[in-house]
Amino acid sequence: MPSSADERIARLEDLFASLPGLGPRSAARLVTELLGTRKSTAQAICRTLADALECVHHCPQCHTLTTQPVCDLCADRTRDASVVCVVETPADQKAVESTVAYRGGYFVLMGRVNPLEGVTPQELGVDKLVERIERENVREVVLATSYTAEGETTAHVLAGVLKKRFPELRVTRLARGLPSGVEIEYTDVATLSRAITDRR
Amino acid sequence: MPSSADERIARLEDLFASLPGLGPRSAARLVTELLGTRKSTAQAICRTLADALECVHHCPQCHTLTTQPVCDLCADRTRDASVVCVVETPADQKAVESTVAYRGGYFVLMGRVNPLEGVTPQELGVDKLVERIERENVREVVLATSYTAEGETTAHVLAGVLKKRFPELRVTRLARGLPSGVEIEYTDVATLSRAITDRR
Repeated sequence: MPSSADERIARLEDLFASLPGLGPRSAARLVTELLGTRKSTAQAICRTLADALECVHHCPQCHTLTTQPVCDLCADRTRDASVVCVVETPADQKAVESTVAYRGGYFVLMGRVNPLEGVTPQELGVDKLVERIERENVREVVLATSYTAEGETTAHVLAGVLKKRFPELRVTRLARGLPSGVEIEYTDVATLSRAITDRR
Repeated sequence: MPSSADERIARLEDLFASLPGLGPRSAARLVTELLGTRKSTAQAICRTLADALECVHHCPQCHTLTTQPVCDLCADRTRDASVVCVVETPADQKAVESTVAYRGGYFVLMGRVNPLEGVTPQELGVDKLVERIERENVREVVLATSYTAEGETTAHVLAGVLKKRFPELRVTRLARGLPSGVEIEYTDVATLSRAITDRR
């Protein structure tokens, strides 16, 4: 443990600055506030985070965060076990669930492949997914990662791993095209050209 | 304590979202990463934050954060006790110190007056400052808060409190004008007009 106030504060700043979306300056401001005028928030974060770290773990089936042996969705026997939808985060899973258009299972990566930050497919639990495809005789995997550079990379890497291991497996991506309620005139070029290519 | 994983995660997200510079979406991403792929960082934050909250406290003289009974700077007997420079954060204090142009004492607010978030002058330790001015016979207070809306408000409110209490006290602000190494042509209008008004 560091000894002086400055060292403690510097260590906290470094830890926060290493998190996504926070730079050195915003981390410094955060730490000043946490130890200065927001001590009660800081104490609550300490308590809640320690508690969550102890109780919350990855679901052995779908890799999402849960406090139960298996998460609620995986415990639901009415879901179609032959299809697995791969999403990046629990928030993405909630978005897909809210459509009521999908009744299969999920696999939540809890991140995106990012070699620069050491986030490999293994880190995202791909071995668990492979084992599940084998065990439950899954016939389709829907790669519902974002259409951003990181999301596309993740989908590409996962598709490679799965196709190599299971040549018979159907690996799909969500359809791309015009969003609902949009006018052609105001659609960006990339979306429109994709919608023309994939027309049906 | 909340019971399910969702409740724990939602509580953590709310806590992080209440901090400056973090919105609901960035807080959600942060929590997913902390409990997912960055558990070791999360554990380190828990430990370091709990340790800092226990050992780090406000210096009774200048309100900055310290682990000692009095901070190093306040313990330094060679400083001129008759002048107090009021800064917003330890980072601002470091910036002023680095100039070597100032040899007086400091008062670190650890924040800015913000009535909407309940940050009053009292919250920022103004009573401690008033007591110190009385005790040490301070003759000048330099209000070195930022020239932003929040910083200006803070200076204005503090100047009001101090002037009312000590009519004889000299209350100053840092000089405003053109920064060093800048060309007149490329200076913004607000800075230039201020530099003309305050010409000497």
